[in-house]
Amino acid sequence: MRPRDLTFQECEAILSESRYGRLGLCADGKPYVVPMSYVYSPGKIFLHSRSSGKKVDLAKKNLEVCFQVDLLDKDRWSSVIAYGKARLSSDQEAKRRMFESFTARDLEGHGGKAFSRGDLKKMEMTIWEIEVEEMSGREGIW
Amino acid sequence: MRPRDLTFQECEAILSESRYGRLGLCADGKPYVVPMSYVYSPGKIFLHSRSSGKKVDLAKKNLEVCFQVDLLDKDRWSSVIAYGKARLSSDQEAKRRMFESFTARDLEGHGGKAFSRGDLKKMEMTIWEIEVEEMSGREGIW
Repeated sequence: MRPRDLTFQECEAILSESRYGRLGLCADGKPYVVPMSYVYSPGKIFLHSRSSGKKVDLAKKNLEVCFQVDLLDKDRWSSVIAYGKARLSSDQEAKRRMFESFTARDLEGHGGKAFSRGDLKKMEMTIWEIEVEEMSGREGIW
Repeated sequence: MRPRDLTFQECEAILSESRYGRLGLCADGKPYVVPMSYVYSPGKIFLHSRSSGKKVDLAKKNLEVCFQVDLLDKDRWSSVIAYGKARLSSDQEAKRRMFESFTARDLEGHGGKAFSRGDLKKMEMTIWEIEVEEMSGREGIW
């Protein structure tokens, strides 16, 4: 059986329901893939990370990223990939937008510490906002 | 809590025990991530795919790939990433090596069809062999 393309609505449903995905980066001619929790809000993917480290360094070299989410079981797989430019910031306004999208999904942690609105100001954290420019998905059997 | 680096042995254990991971590719300045079943044999990752399609096209542009495997649960994550050059081929010898590594792990399917040694000759299939040049892993809490 050949894989089937997912519709836009099916892609959005998978992105909306999952909690974890993989960020894909590409710099110096090499790919990098790292799992992250995220929230999808139509047209946009929110992530958060520490303010330094490999993924931040690579994103600074190339902001063209992808974010991939899949559902895998023994028989069947489906996968959605969204492409876009990442915007990285640590200002209060971006933290507030991220906080609202994460708490709406019950995802409130950062390195094992729950965060409240009041904590945000002092937390050293980078917010990633990916404006989705292109999205596609497929499903198939292994 | 800061993430912890995994030892080489811990990385190999995760690669050896999992069935699915994500191949990362990088071409034309953009990353691409796709889930695939795989088998790890010390120092090498075996994949198989159709002989045409997006991932094959991208790999032909840049053979520097990564393969990422993770274990994610609500509280904790661990992730291993292996980097190397992919070698793509469809000759009988590569098919035989892939077949032996896959059947040893009880992974015998390709697009929903089980394959036997006798079928291999006629199956249109590309074998990916990634020689692992570098590998690292981390674990942490969300």
